[in-house]
Formats: sequence, C-alpha cells, structure tokens
Amino acid sequence: MTQPIPAPVLPTHGSRRPLGLGEVRITGGFWARRQQVNASATLDHCRQRMERAGWIDNFRIAASGGPLGERRRGREFSDSEVYKLLEAMVWESARTPGTPLDAAVDELADTVAAAQEADGYLNTAFGHPGRPPRYSDLEWGHELYCLGHLIQAGVAQLRTRGDGALAKAAIRAADHVCHVFGPEGGNPGLCGHPEIETALAELHRATGERRYLDQAALFVERRGHGTLAGAEFAPAYFQDDVPVRRAHTLRGHAVRALYLASGAVDVAVETGDDELLAAVVRQWEHTTARRTHLTGGMGSHHSDEGFGEDFVLPPDRAYSETCASVASLMLGWRLLLATGDPRYADLAERTLYNVIAASPADDGRSFFYANTLHQRVRATVPPSDSDSPRPAPGLRAPWYAVSCCLPNVARTLAALGGYVATADADGLQLYQYADAEITTRTPGGERVALRMRTDYPEGGTVVVTVDEAPEGRWSLALRVPGWADGAWLVVPGGQRRPVRPGMAVVPGTLRPGDEVRLELPVTPRWVHPDPRVDAVRGTVAVERGPVVYCAESPDLPDGRDVDAVTVDPSVAPRDGAGGRVVVTGELTGAHSTGWWPYLHDRPPVPAAVRTELTLVPYLSWASRGPSTMRVWLPVTPGAAGEPDPAPEG
Amino acid sequence: MTQPIPAPVLPTHGSRRPLGLGEVRITGGFWARRQQVNASATLDHCRQRMERAGWIDNFRIAASGGPLGERRRGREFSDSEVYKLLEAMVWESARTPGTPLDAAVDELADTVAAAQEADGYLNTAFGHPGRPPRYSDLEWGHELYCLGHLIQAGVAQLRTRGDGALAKAAIRAADHVCHVFGPEGGNPGLCGHPEIETALAELHRATGERRYLDQAALFVERRGHGTLAGAEFAPAYFQDDVPVRRAHTLRGHAVRALYLASGAVDVAVETGDDELLAAVVRQWEHTTARRTHLTGGMGSHHSDEGFGEDFVLPPDRAYSETCASVASLMLGWRLLLATGDPRYADLAERTLYNVIAASPADDGRSFFYANTLHQRVRATVPPSDSDSPRPAPGLRAPWYAVSCCLPNVARTLAALGGYVATADADGLQLYQYADAEITTRTPGGERVALRMRTDYPEGGTVVVTVDEAPEGRWSLALRVPGWADGAWLVVPGGQRRPVRPGMAVVPGTLRPGDEVRLELPVTPRWVHPDPRVDAVRGTVAVERGPVVYCAESPDLPDGRDVDAVTVDPSVAPRDGAGGRVVVTGELTGAHSTGWWPYLHDRPPVPAAVRTELTLVPYLSWASRGPSTMRVWLPVTPGAAGEPDPAPEG
Repeated sequence: MTQPIPAPVLPTHGSRRPLGLGEVRITGGFWARRQQVNASATLDHCRQRMERAGWIDNFRIAASGGPLGERRRGREFSDSEVYKLLEAMVWESARTPGTPLDAAVDELADTVAAAQEADGYLNTAFGHPGRPPRYSDLEWGHELYCLGHLIQAGVAQLRTRGDGALAKAAIRAADHVCHVFGPEGGNPGLCGHPEIETALAELHRATGERRYLDQAALFVERRGHGTLAGAEFAPAYFQDDVPVRRAHTLRGHAVRALYLASGAVDVAVETGDDELLAAVVRQWEHTTARRTHLTGGMGSHHSDEGFGEDFVLPPDRAYSETCASVASLMLGWRLLLATGDPRYADLAERTLYNVIAASPADDGRSFFYANTLHQRVRATVPPSDSDSPRPAPGLRAPWYAVSCCLPNVARTLAALGGYVATADADGLQLYQYADAEITTRTPGGERVALRMRTDYPEGGTVVVTVDEAPEGRWSLALRVPGWADGAWLVVPGGQRRPVRPGMAVVPGTLRPGDEVRLELPVTPRWVHPDPRVDAVRGTVAVERGPVVYCAESPDLPDGRDVDAVTVDPSVAPRDGAGGRVVVTGELTGAHSTGWWPYLHDRPPVPAAVRTELTLVPYLSWASRGPSTMRVWLPVTPGAAGEPDPAPEG
Repeated sequence: MTQPIPAPVLPTHGSRRPLGLGEVRITGGFWARRQQVNASATLDHCRQRMERAGWIDNFRIAASGGPLGERRRGREFSDSEVYKLLEAMVWESARTPGTPLDAAVDELADTVAAAQEADGYLNTAFGHPGRPPRYSDLEWGHELYCLGHLIQAGVAQLRTRGDGALAKAAIRAADHVCHVFGPEGGNPGLCGHPEIETALAELHRATGERRYLDQAALFVERRGHGTLAGAEFAPAYFQDDVPVRRAHTLRGHAVRALYLASGAVDVAVETGDDELLAAVVRQWEHTTARRTHLTGGMGSHHSDEGFGEDFVLPPDRAYSETCASVASLMLGWRLLLATGDPRYADLAERTLYNVIAASPADDGRSFFYANTLHQRVRATVPPSDSDSPRPAPGLRAPWYAVSCCLPNVARTLAALGGYVATADADGLQLYQYADAEITTRTPGGERVALRMRTDYPEGGTVVVTVDEAPEGRWSLALRVPGWADGAWLVVPGGQRRPVRPGMAVVPGTLRPGDEVRLELPVTPRWVHPDPRVDAVRGTVAVERGPVVYCAESPDLPDGRDVDAVTVDPSVAPRDGAGGRVVVTGELTGAHSTGWWPYLHDRPPVPAAVRTELTLVPYLSWASRGPSTMRVWLPVTPGAAGEPDPAPEG
C-alpha cells in the first residue's frame, strides 16, 4: 500500500512516480485561472443543475425508501455525474483546504451514501420498486460504470483525507462488485461502459486490497468475446470484439475505449503484465497517429460517439467529445508513468489546451459536449434554462440532458496539479508548464523545492528556480514538446544549449539558488496534415506553441463567413495583437452556384482579394456570440511559392 | 376523378400527365433485368424475411384478437414494410398480369385487412392490450406513417385493379384519419414521419374524395410550428422547425424531408397553391446544389439519417440511405409533372443508376441500407441468417432489423415504367431511356405507339420508331441530360442536329415509320466538385453517361487498397473492356507514419508508379466480395498538365 499521496493516479510500480496535489501547486497563469473559475463557478453550477435535474433527489428518494419508479429522473447513468462532481469537490477541497467545500462534500456524500444498500449495491435506476432489477441490462444499464465513478470519488477521498463517507461507500461498493462478479460470484457479466476496471485497480492501490485488483483484471479479460451487443451496436462499440491484449487500435465508443485502456494499464502495471501494457501502448500509437484530431480530440462519429476508421477525421463532423479528452488524459498519464515516454505528455498538453480548456466557457457555467473543428453556420442561442441536445454545435450550453462532460472537466481541473511532474530514482521530471511551486522529497527523504515561472503558452520561456535540493546527485528533466524545433536550455551559469524534442536533462546536479531556463519557440507555424486524412486535403492549420488556432467570423470584414478564407502557406504566419496570429491569404467572392455541384469543367475560381487575416486560439472560439469557425484552412489556389511536393527518391 | 391509369403518381392538374404502367412497357436492357430480378427474387425474399421476422404474424395475432403485448415483434414501423411489399406486389402484378402474384396479393392483403379495426384504425404496435394507446407517441410511433403506406398500397390497387381488399382498407383508414385528425376530430397532432400527406392526396386523386386532400393540406400546414421534439432530436429533424411554405431547403431526416416535400407538391398541385409549389421547388434547388452526393444520394449524417449543412458531403460517411433515393425520385417526378422541367429527370436518372440500382445485389436478395462513396476497410461477411446493423458498410446484407429499403426499392422497380414518359396537349416527352414500347392516346383519343431501342447506358444511342401516330400535329421531345455536352439528334430523313441539355423537341410532326435517333456522348469524363464541398477538395471523379465510376480494390495489383490511388485529370479517361473505364494515375507506396499525423513540414510524398487504373461502375461495387472502394480520387501531386485554376476576371 502506497502512502496516501493526493494524486489522481498512483501506481505502485512503473517508471515514474507522479507528484501529487500537495507537491505541485499551480500558482498563476493560464491553468490557475481555470482552476479558480472551476472552484468558484463550475462546481456550484454543476450542483445547481444536478439538483434541478433531479439527479440528487434520486438518491434522497432511494434513501427514504420511497418508491423511485416513475419518479426517478435523468438518464440511466445520472448517478455517475453526481459521483464525478463529488470527486471534483474532493480534489478541489484538497487543493484549497479550509473552505466550506469540505462540509459540502460531507453533506453530498452523506446524501449519496444514505442510498447505499446493506450489501453495498448503489444505483437509483435499478433494483428499486418500479425499476428494472439489478444487472438486468449490462449493455446499457451503466450500473458498474456508476459504481466505478463512486469508487473513484472514494479513492480521491482516501488519498486526500484518508477516510470519509465516500471512502467507506466506495469500499462497500467494491466488496459488493467482487462478491457478485468475482470468480465465485456467479455473474460472469461485464458492464457496457468500462470504468469499473480503473476504479477497482485504483482502490486496490489506495487500500492494498488485492481482491479489487483481481476483479479489475477479471473484467479486463472478460471483454473482447462478443458478449455485449445491443440493438444496432456491434460488439466493437463496447470494445467487446477483440480482447484488450490482442487489439491493435482503440475503436468503438471513444470514452468507453479510453476508460477501458486506462484500466488495462492499471492492471498491467500492478500485475507486471508486460504483454497487456505493450498492447495498450500499441493501441495508443495507432490511435494517436491515425484517429486523433489536430486538437488532440478523439472520436469522429456522431452516430456512436466513436472512433472512425483510420484517417476518418472530418473537421465539420468532429465529435471530439469533451469526456474523451479527459479519458485520453487519464490514459496518457498512466502510460507516461508506466514508461516514462514524454510523447504521452505531448498529446496531453495538446488535449488540455485545445479540448479541455476549450470546452468550458470563460465563466465556467456553460460548455461544449462535442468539439467541432469547423462550424459552418452560426448557431442559434440556446435558452439558458433548457437542456441542449448533445452535439449542439456552435455555442457552449449551460446544460445537456446528458451532461457527463462538465463534471469530468471539473474533476480534471481540480486535480490538474497531479499531471504536471513526476519523480524517479534519479530526480524530477517536468511535463507541463505553469507558474507553480513544487515541493517533494527524494526516495531518501531529502527535500526538493522548485519554483516554475512562465507566461506559457503565450510566451515560450520557462524559468525553474531551485530553492531546496538534496545533498547528493539528482537530476531535473524538462519536456521539450514535439513541435518545438529550435528549443534552447539555459543552464546555471548561462550556457545556452540546443535541445531536441523529448526530455531535456539538465546536466550536472542543481543546487539551491540555481536557475534553469527552457526557451521554447512559440512563433506561429503552419501545420500540414497527413495526406491520408481525406477530409482536410488541400488545407493547412496554424499552431503557436501548444495552441491550435482558427479563423472565426468576427475577425473577418463585412460579416463574411470563414468559408470565404483561403491562406498562403508560403508566407509565414506572424504574431498579432492580444494572442492572435496573422496570416496572409485571400478572401474570395461568392461562388457561382449552378443547380448541380459536380461538373465536367473545373469550377471557376471566384475573384479574391489578397489580405491579411487574423486567427484566434481555437480554445476561445464562440466566446463572442454565434460565429462560423474553421481550423483547417484551404490553401489559396496557385498560392505564390506553394511548391509542388517533390516525390521521394 | 381521373381515369384509373396504373401510374405511381397521378395529378389531376399540372404541366404533364404521366404515362402509366399500361402505356410504357420496359422490354429489355438494364432496367428490364432489374425488374425481372425484382419480380422473381426480391418480392419473395422480402416476404420470407418478413414472415421470419414476425412482422406479418403481428397482423395475424391482432386479427385473432390475441393479446399482442410482448408477442409483437419488430420496430414500431414494421407494419409499413408489409404495406410497401404489398404495394410492390400490386405494381408487379399490373406490370406482368396473369401470374400467381394476383392471388398472393389477395392473401396478404386479407391478412392485413383482417387486423383493421371497426373504425378503420390499423396498427399492430399501438392500441392493443399490452401495447401503448393509439396516438400516444406521435413523434416516434409512426402510426400515421404506417397508415400512409397502407393507403399508398390501396391507391396502387385502385389504379391497377379498380378495387380490392387493400383499396377498401385504405379508404377506411383514410376516413378514420380524417375523423380523428380533421378540423372537427379533436386531435391537432401530426406524425413524426411524414407520408400520410402524399398518401391522402393520392387517395383523393384515386377516389375524388375531397376530404382526403383537405386532410393532407391540413397535415402539411400543421408542420413547422415546433410541435414535435423528441429526446435529443430538434424540431428540424421532423421538419417541424419552419412551415413548408417558408423553408428554403430540405433539412433534418432525409426520408422524412423528401416524403413531406412530395406530399406538399401533391397538395399544391391539387389545390392550385403556387406559393407552396414554389417553396418546394426552391428547397429542391437548394438541396440539389448543396446537399446531394455525386450519386444523387441524399443524407450525409449517420447520427440522424439527415441532411447535413450545405456542402457537408463526406464520401466516407455518406449515409445516402436507399430509401432517401426512392423518396428523391418520388419528389422529383412530382415536380417534373408539375413544372415540366427536365432537370428533375436528370437527378432522377442519376439516382436510379447510382443509388437505386446500386443498393440491391444482382440476385435481388441482399442490399445496402446506406450507400457510402468511400469504403476504407474490407467488410467482414455478415451471416446470411442474421439481421445486420443498418450502416453495415462494405457488403450488401440480406436483411436488417430496420429493412425499409428493400421493399421501397421493390415498389419503385415494379412501377418504374411509370417514371419514363409524360404527355401534354402537344405530344409526348421521354425522360428515361430503355428498350420500351410506349402506347397511349392523345387527349383527342388518337393512338400513339412508339418503340425505343437502346443499349443505354453502355451505349449512348437511343432509337425511337413511330408505329402509330395521330393524324394532326403532335410533338415528341427527348431529354438531353445535363452532362451530355455534344449530343446529336438525327431526325427522320437523316438530318443530324446538335442538341443541348434540356428537352430536344423533334421538329415537325412524326408519322408512322419515322425514326428518330438521339446520340448521347457516353465517353467517360472527369468530374470536378464544387470547391465548397470540403470533404472532396483535391479530388476528381469519373462518370460515363449517367453512371458514376469508382476505384475498387479487386482491380488493383498486389492486393492494394484504393487509398494508394491518385489520378491525373490531364489525361482523359477512356473506355476499357466490359463497361469499365481506364484512367491514368499513380499507385503510391506506403506513407511513412510517425506518431503524430500533423507536422510543420509538408509530409513527404511516397514513391509512386505511374500506371493505368481500371474503374468500375459504382453500382456494381462490392459484388466480388469484401473490398475497398472510392468514388472521389485524389489528384496525383503535381500531375502533368494539371493547370492552376485561373482566377475569374
């Protein structure tokens, strides 16, 4: 059993140990602002909307013994949203101790726990009078999924406070699950939505109880044998087509796939199952290279919220569910801890800035469920007191009938300090950059204290000051992102060395007072897609540091829409005012529209005006009211200097 | 009340009168083969699968008074599939009289009619013990939709046989609908799935009963006021966001939109409502120019089976439901009859050859539900005795849990003679080309008899021989398709005149023995997309006559997949053997795959081999087992002679 370090993931083995929330405090800048809004607005907003939706009353009715029956409100998985909110509140309460949040956690946790039954079962949609029986719909019922989120909230409480109503409820729930679904339990089933796997493995880590890990492993192994198939959904939707250790890619419903893979990594790490770990690494590599949007978003189908086939990544139909980005972060962090490979942090950074930060509004009280990369028509403003349809593209909505995403983002932001840095026997590794104070101890018990100062991602300079350091040898390594061609490391004494993408290890051993500076080139740059991504052929995008940019209609003259824009990638993009980027391109006139859009003659190119165009960070789009937006910008026909690509030798 | 001409659509007003099945007999060639397979295999296949699925037993149980309750099988709209099959059988029985089909129609019609209740209501999913009450779920219940298909089958029987059990059941059903949903009926609702509108208008045409038309008009006007909204579907899904006469485009669920528009045209024509007709014309024009796939297929979303926004037409996620193509044919034919505009027949021809003929297998016993334009992975063979998931891309499946498409194609093929030619006061107009015998009478009662001979679409020559002709002035006009640049008309006496797309009117008055020859240029040609269709930027397609071509993996060397193909549009495509087309292009080697697919440097172009490539008609794809396929082919990078498009002046 490991020490109760307040970290969202805490393997007992692996290449790196994560630094917990107590060890990494984000003190300012981009992410501190978002953590502050999360704490002051989003948690409250979620609580209010869940009360209004009746999702918390479901627990109250269940606890009172009143018949739930028709009175139960919300979808079959609404319990899990309350658990995710609780988990977020627990992390936030650990991040900023001494606030009224502690009492709020206890009150809501008591409400939930009061509905738990004597044998540990807890669900408001099943197993009550007037409701379907327990485990009568494993494909769609989400019962184990919900218990998994309860257990994750309990794990958070175990790691931050050591005990509490959530922790107790989690342990009772886990015991119940092992009892029913264990080798002697008699129920050989598995849940349509993975989540219980990682939850049980984490509870094993938090309690030392081996049964939980065994049960997690059993659930991982049970999947992939075609047990699950509902209505028009094939087993692949549930990742039930191929066993985890044999699959070559993530597939099916994106959140399901990523949660399952996270649980599989947890099991692999705890049991030393290198084959299983290698299988997930292989799936991550395939998926990242072929099934991931530029923003890091995953999932290209609206119809099944799923991964498409390789290279099916249409910007205008990108689903890129916010929850899938949270799940991607969960998976990547587990793989990083297991392997030490900084590529996982590259994708995590991209996902954080371009999906997780893009989904909630600045005020933390509305959000995107799906994160399109191309908005063709201006949205109509959703009424603030109604639930929006999920894809509701074009404007962040206060709430959806399915509102899994906002509490998922909330628990991630509250725990974000836990995704910044790791330690190993040699020293510390920094993966994400923010104003932060890092204080930890070496395995030998010596204190290390660092301060990070940066205006990243606007600026590319990260200054790390050593305040305390061990006596002996220890090392500090900083991640150089994959996009950072031409990065420099300035070591104590002022020597400037070029560093390549990967981990830049500071040479020698740092002493108190030493300063290290990482200089990342955040000048804007063109990005070209793999030619196999058919949907973006003939287009380019712009990035600046980790931030993806987009053209948005409010920045175009005369009320024009973004589909009038083409760009000339032979002219380098440059910084504009206020975090914007300026590119050169054309604004085209109206296309002539015949009655049929496919013609023998090449279509005439409308007259166009060469001009400079302002791009804004994708994460901020739709903040100025209804707009049109696109990330991938068509190349101006015959753009000067646009070279024909030369065939390879 | 019009004469009982056996035509699928029979307006009492309009620009053109359709020639019915008794007037146009398709005697050979492409469509005669499909009609023969339809008659000999598809009808039987549908009947067998519907029996096995229990959809016909539902009627038997209902008729016996046995409680349907849990015993009812199939989706809520399965009754309608039986009605569409019946309609197909009725048309087929009229097309080829004297077969055992007559008796089969009576037997199945009696089974259905026996379940009709005393007041005319008929539905096996609602209004029975253990089933939800009548009209308790107008959004999703499909009760009026089902009655609409019953009425259409009844109309077919009225027009072909004059009477029968179906005709009687239809009239009783229509009376019931008018009673419940009429101005004094008290139920102000409308059905989530349009269909009742066109059915009632057609029954008015077939019976002269004005109430049916008034009720159809009432249903058309009731839509568009936000009454319908189910779960996560916005009113636009149901076309309930904007009244028909105010909408500018088809939108939402494609089949719903097209059926509604068909009903609106019927109402507009019968009531002389020019504003309503103009509204549908406007919607058709917008939809055709911006929301239609190259194949004529409509619908680009899998998630809601719906139209996407303008120019959202991804080939690899094309939904292009087969039923939407049938519905498009229904709408276009109505608009053609109303206006005489041959563009509707252009789209109809494209849709017939590239969706309606593409969906069923050669043997008529399996079919595509959705019709993708790009198959990226080889399908796995569906088991022949199971129901496939709807999108099931890659191979035609024998049956689906929702199998609306095959009976819809069956009724269309059986009635296809009714979509070939029209008459007006001046003479005859031919729109579709096939070996056919056409016999009709002028308004003055004089006989006209023509023979069409052609090997279209393989060849482009259509010979029309006049066998009988009126004494006085009459005219013959032939459609020159929009793609037919360089067509010729050879008039009696041998004079050869160039004719432009549109209607080519034969000059003078034809006499018995005269021969007219239309020569359409069916040499293969490149087709370029409107640049606003983002998903196919940088690609071209090939057509030959009305037939869309595709690259398919069985025609590539070494087991290569179609994503290795690029083409050089500066080299004209040419005819190959066996109806194939040969283009020049490249087969590229393997792309290098890094861990991240979006890079600052332009991706290297893999080594490629210049080669000739064989394309096959899209309608025949997936006939040789699992394959990969694409219609839109990327242009070879730097293809010789590929000109930069010159800006317009």
